[in-house]
Amino acid sequence: MGVSIEDVERAAERIAGRVRRTPVLEVRPGVFLKLESTQHTGSFKVRGAFNRVLAAGRLPGAGVIAASGGNHGLAVAHVAGALGVRAEIFVPTVSSPVKVAGLRALGAEVTQTGAVYAEAYEASLKRVAETGALEIHAYDQADVVAGQGTVGLEVLEQTRGVDTVVVAVGGGGLIAGVTAALGGRARVVAVEPELIPTLNRALQEGGPVQVGVAGVGADALGAGRIGEIAYEITSAAGVESVLVSDEAIDEARRELWRSCRIAAEHAGAAALAALRSGAYVPAPGERVAVIVCGANTDPATLL
Amino acid sequence: MGVSIEDVERAAERIAGRVRRTPVLEVRPGVFLKLESTQHTGSFKVRGAFNRVLAAGRLPGAGVIAASGGNHGLAVAHVAGALGVRAEIFVPTVSSPVKVAGLRALGAEVTQTGAVYAEAYEASLKRVAETGALEIHAYDQADVVAGQGTVGLEVLEQTRGVDTVVVAVGGGGLIAGVTAALGGRARVVAVEPELIPTLNRALQEGGPVQVGVAGVGADALGAGRIGEIAYEITSAAGVESVLVSDEAIDEARRELWRSCRIAAEHAGAAALAALRSGAYVPAPGERVAVIVCGANTDPATLL
Repeated sequence: MGVSIEDVERAAERIAGRVRRTPVLEVRPGVFLKLESTQHTGSFKVRGAFNRVLAAGRLPGAGVIAASGGNHGLAVAHVAGALGVRAEIFVPTVSSPVKVAGLRALGAEVTQTGAVYAEAYEASLKRVAETGALEIHAYDQADVVAGQGTVGLEVLEQTRGVDTVVVAVGGGGLIAGVTAALGGRARVVAVEPELIPTLNRALQEGGPVQVGVAGVGADALGAGRIGEIAYEITSAAGVESVLVSDEAIDEARRELWRSCRIAAEHAGAAALAALRSGAYVPAPGERVAVIVCGANTDPATLL
Repeated sequence: MGVSIEDVERAAERIAGRVRRTPVLEVRPGVFLKLESTQHTGSFKVRGAFNRVLAAGRLPGAGVIAASGGNHGLAVAHVAGALGVRAEIFVPTVSSPVKVAGLRALGAEVTQTGAVYAEAYEASLKRVAETGALEIHAYDQADVVAGQGTVGLEVLEQTRGVDTVVVAVGGGGLIAGVTAALGGRARVVAVEPELIPTLNRALQEGGPVQVGVAGVGADALGAGRIGEIAYEITSAAGVESVLVSDEAIDEARRELWRSCRIAAEHAGAAALAALRSGAYVPAPGERVAVIVCGANTDPATLL
């Protein structure tokens, strides 16, 4: 179940040319923003989805299946379109018509079922069993994690090395991949909203536990339970877990716009919030990379 | 009046650490976006303003003066604040309260005078004569042009060389600087809205002429007459001039958001519009850098 540096390097080779090598902006001396917000479909999620599909080799005719009305769903729909395979995306009936339309615009077949995400997910697994399609999990699959980890390899190359990488955590696919990719070459700081402390609680309790989901991160960081792979990798690596308030996230998001004209969703600004709020305080001279992981937001709310 | 590569290189040394080395995103193989939209105050203009002030050496107590309710005014206010000198900015009385408030928030003294920009500009020159303050022109000063040219040096370094650099033209400070910086190492394509063809007409007529100002570029590309320095440099270098419709600019701007979550003002998307509309068609394999030169826009209008 583990993911090694080599797994991430192989993922990088597989997905090269299919994902963007997103740019890095040094906003202050030694503070680097990795603008993964400019990735295809507006988040890092295409990396894991491409790697999962390409690692699977020959796909069943039924194509791929995922459950997500958010960034993961968009990513899977994009990847399927780019590779010319079918995608079925399961979303709960409460999903906004805008999101459903966005998925369909990317060519996916969308099934709205279940009152909440968990029910849509169960329906997607049933459909996988029926059709033999390839399930692409939002975070808890080794190939997905390895794909997300390619962000970490790029950060090391583009910054010529940093001491610390700060990453927002939802289900933990990105932080697990980045931690694996770094392999101890930089410290990893995990940032979660105070209202959704999935990794923080798991590290306290000695294993994944269900937590409440609320606040500005609910949309993109609302897994509610850290993935098994993410727990295993981050706990073994001694990743530092910090929490930030919704206010700090919101301020960081506005600061990204005001100071850099960078659009970020709340989840995309959470990592920066840890620096701005003092939840993580770098030592003098410490070189820090902050991953701006997504920008799927209504731009009218950036000001 | 000319500006040499060496002038631009000296400008780069002067302003290093004070401006951002803005990132480059390769959106398609061989097509690079230079995200100058993430520069301080949301446009390239701080480069020229920093260089003008720093090249002047010891400043008069009266500080600096500029006339602009737009990107140049914001840049001069930022530069003055960063260097701890006074800034007086002259804007016409029609300037929006939001813009005036933005200038004051950066610490500038704002004088609203005159019905149109030209009258505010005349008033600023009168004030320069009275106070001995340093005038910072929006485009037609050698040190301003050399500062803007540092964008061109960065493009060459960050892309490891391109065949062509595509640049939007208003008064011509950016294109003059970039043309000087490249010194023939890449072709330069000048892009203007069809409704404001200041350089295009000048190249036809053999010298700067007044043109009408209208359409989506009026805000940031609305100089109405190409600068003398810009005309001299671009005509001598054989810069290719192309025009784009307002519709093409608007589509390019939306595409930047939709495909890359990059915020751009209309002027900032004009260069990309030349590629998307076919106003400039690269040869197969041609490496092209497109400068996204500004993002001072209402984000609510990006969708």
